[in-house]
Amino acid sequence: MEKKFQELWSRLREIDDLESAAAVLGWDQRSYMPPGGAPARARQIGTLLRLAHEQFTDAALGKLLDELQPYEASLPYDSDDASLIRVTRRDYERAVCIPSSFKFEYDANAAMTYQVWTRARADDDFATIAPYLEKTLDLSRRYAAFFPESDHMIDPLIELFDEGVTGADLRELFGELQSNLRPMVHAIAAQSDPEASFLHQHFPADKQLAFGLDVVQRFGYDLNRGRQDLSDHPISTSFSVDDVRITTRVNEHDVTSALFGTMHEAGHAIYIQNIRKELEGTPLGRGATAGVHESQSRLWENLVGRSRAFWEFFYPSLQAVLAEQLGSVPVDQFYRAMNAVKAGLFRVGADEVTYSLHCAMRFQLEMDLLEGQVAVRDLPDVWRERFQKNFGIAPANDRDGVLQEMNWYCGRIGGLYQHFTLGNLMSALWFQAAVKAHPEIEDEMARGEFETLRNWLVENIHTHGRKFTIPELVDRVTGGVLTADAYLAYLRQKYGALYALDFSIPDRGEGR
Amino acid sequence: MEKKFQELWSRLREIDDLESAAAVLGWDQRSYMPPGGAPARARQIGTLLRLAHEQFTDAALGKLLDELQPYEASLPYDSDDASLIRVTRRDYERAVCIPSSFKFEYDANAAMTYQVWTRARADDDFATIAPYLEKTLDLSRRYAAFFPESDHMIDPLIELFDEGVTGADLRELFGELQSNLRPMVHAIAAQSDPEASFLHQHFPADKQLAFGLDVVQRFGYDLNRGRQDLSDHPISTSFSVDDVRITTRVNEHDVTSALFGTMHEAGHAIYIQNIRKELEGTPLGRGATAGVHESQSRLWENLVGRSRAFWEFFYPSLQAVLAEQLGSVPVDQFYRAMNAVKAGLFRVGADEVTYSLHCAMRFQLEMDLLEGQVAVRDLPDVWRERFQKNFGIAPANDRDGVLQEMNWYCGRIGGLYQHFTLGNLMSALWFQAAVKAHPEIEDEMARGEFETLRNWLVENIHTHGRKFTIPELVDRVTGGVLTADAYLAYLRQKYGALYALDFSIPDRGEGR
Repeated sequence: MEKKFQELWSRLREIDDLESAAAVLGWDQRSYMPPGGAPARARQIGTLLRLAHEQFTDAALGKLLDELQPYEASLPYDSDDASLIRVTRRDYERAVCIPSSFKFEYDANAAMTYQVWTRARADDDFATIAPYLEKTLDLSRRYAAFFPESDHMIDPLIELFDEGVTGADLRELFGELQSNLRPMVHAIAAQSDPEASFLHQHFPADKQLAFGLDVVQRFGYDLNRGRQDLSDHPISTSFSVDDVRITTRVNEHDVTSALFGTMHEAGHAIYIQNIRKELEGTPLGRGATAGVHESQSRLWENLVGRSRAFWEFFYPSLQAVLAEQLGSVPVDQFYRAMNAVKAGLFRVGADEVTYSLHCAMRFQLEMDLLEGQVAVRDLPDVWRERFQKNFGIAPANDRDGVLQEMNWYCGRIGGLYQHFTLGNLMSALWFQAAVKAHPEIEDEMARGEFETLRNWLVENIHTHGRKFTIPELVDRVTGGVLTADAYLAYLRQKYGALYALDFSIPDRGEGR
Repeated sequence: MEKKFQELWSRLREIDDLESAAAVLGWDQRSYMPPGGAPARARQIGTLLRLAHEQFTDAALGKLLDELQPYEASLPYDSDDASLIRVTRRDYERAVCIPSSFKFEYDANAAMTYQVWTRARADDDFATIAPYLEKTLDLSRRYAAFFPESDHMIDPLIELFDEGVTGADLRELFGELQSNLRPMVHAIAAQSDPEASFLHQHFPADKQLAFGLDVVQRFGYDLNRGRQDLSDHPISTSFSVDDVRITTRVNEHDVTSALFGTMHEAGHAIYIQNIRKELEGTPLGRGATAGVHESQSRLWENLVGRSRAFWEFFYPSLQAVLAEQLGSVPVDQFYRAMNAVKAGLFRVGADEVTYSLHCAMRFQLEMDLLEGQVAVRDLPDVWRERFQKNFGIAPANDRDGVLQEMNWYCGRIGGLYQHFTLGNLMSALWFQAAVKAHPEIEDEMARGEFETLRNWLVENIHTHGRKFTIPELVDRVTGGVLTADAYLAYLRQKYGALYALDFSIPDRGEGR
């Protein structure tokens, strides 16, 4: 049995080596690759991922997993070996449901759609992309049909990113969020905006980068096992638990974008750097789900990075570095500007209160598209109507509307927006649990110390890698199920104070 | 038949994708990888190369090559398809001669020996590395024994790097070089050294890098399909013909090392950037042999970069950039300092006249070790004796002697030094042929123009990739065989003028 487990482990490690190599090639593609290198690079990444997929769907792997069932059953559920067999089997069973002819059609459509979208967006031309989106929707439904036991078409699509969460769960969570957040957004909209023009002076890139890197090192991002580079789109990527990199972009006319982007990506990176070394090179050596990943990035970016306590400590150093620009701006004014709530057209860059509304609207559209309640051709109009309803404004064109971000134009509709919101919900849940266990965390933050918080996250989340699903993790931490309560309580308290509004907690029954 | 050829091509391209991916990982390892990433990276590169090797030695590939024999025979020798089948068959037949158990033993010894050498060198401790070198010698002989049809043990080892050249050829070439170069070195040693202390002031790294990059772009290195980064050991590496990178290191107290290093690596890179696109992703999409590769780097570094004509044009710009350091140094003095001949302990950094003597001595030691004429334990003493004989000096310790460079400590003895000298010989041969065809080349160089020279190299060397062996290439260009004549004539003329000595060409019979 030990020999069989060893064989499983070797096979998985080889697959992980191929995938990690593809990740290095992807990182280089975004950061340093000369433009001429693009076509060969796409081919090389394609080959690596194809080989990894072929090896993972090899029938011999399925046979091994069957043979290892008694071994798995003999071990505790949360042991390394049992978890590896369990999680690998889940991935394997999912992967072998998809015929390679479908995968081929899917990949081709994804590549083509993305390419057409970049032009369609620039030209504000939804009509050109619409047929590709029809095809994408068709493929998404066909993908779902490979899993006939699902309650809803969207479930297998969600499962790809956030294991253990269903469309029904999300409909409920998003419903509660919307009914609670809309009144908050409306109440805040009636208030006057905080003064924030000072955020948009000229801030030299090198100073922004150095400050950001100092902050995330204090969070615990280990540069001996990571590094930061520039790229057009900020990412976090890892090639082992000891080589976890982030990229960022700098806007010299906005002091917030690189800084919060760096905190966000470092949140992802710190997660991976603290997965137990023994899990590296296997399907367990990754973040649990996309939503759990996002809970880490959002926790450091928002719960920590946009907190009053954080700026209490860091603002004097930022002022020292950028004396000319910020020397005369008091910390309170800076804190308020940083947390201004304002309905805007874009999800990316949205404040904490409106952010989940953007996601909720997109999630509902994914459901409606899959169910045929909304047709692709009507999408631009429906987008505008619903936007108006949620935010009281609507985009003047599709470029700032339904074409604004790449997500639906990468081959798949469904499962692409829940993780942002799950991340928000869990970020508040973890923070609440950590502070409950260690009330000193908030005082420490105000002294620029993050060890207690980080250690709590390492012990409760990071170390497990991908052993547990979202419900399992939430249950381990809170003994209950995932709700929006902690997140809503956090928003009510913080933004009630910021805008001097009484966001008293409504009766639970009424809230739903 | 077309289908079979297509299959061969697809298989080779997949192997090339794996090898190119390993090259990206290797480049990153040298340039940007954080220290913590090292162990996983070694494993990942190992996996990629092992998979590539497994695919290349697959019996199905041998069968395809057999089946394609009639197709190959029906085509001209130098056609793309015939060349691909021919060169692949040569590689395949060589690869399948090596049992995987041997490869395993070989790789393990190589990794261990290199690791022990790094410490042994630092500690000036030959005794510790000696047993590993014994093992390396044993493995090198055993490797050679897999090719029993060879005339000499060293031939299969040379064949790995420089196809078409034998130990007997090299013994003759090196003999001629030594008998001609020793008297030159002695004659120059009797002259006074040129004033060169001004080369060792403080030269800011950014200015050195910018100047070097400008020079190699004028040579024709295309930054749209390449880039330069810093690393501890300068390299050139390629991931396709459209992504060919160089690295360099800068010494702020030496204005020459980064500059000539950059020209050298760019010489390698320009070669690959100009291989015909159709050959990319196959065994033909590379440099012909290590020696031909070196002929490109040495041509740009020495025949161009250390020429009077080159500095006629570039020295004023270098003076403008480094006015404080070089403003009062006339071009002639700079040119002489740059080309000072001086017997030294090290091959790396040696001048053009002594360089080939370093290689000749090492080549002879490789022959003697393989044949058992010199025992490993006697190597340090033999090194000192022979060094004394060749250069009139000897190292005081082994660190500056037999331990000075990694080559013999990477798993193999034999075939590691001929390519430097073959590169020198061919660099002069190509340059002579190019100038014969286009006498305007030297005037153009003095105007900072290199198009005619580069185009000649592209047409006669680069474009063919790996189609031809060294004898084939030399025959195509000169209609003859490779001799030391062009190189010796170049050195005699240049250094005779520099040192005001009469290096009249001795009678051919006497020279040997």
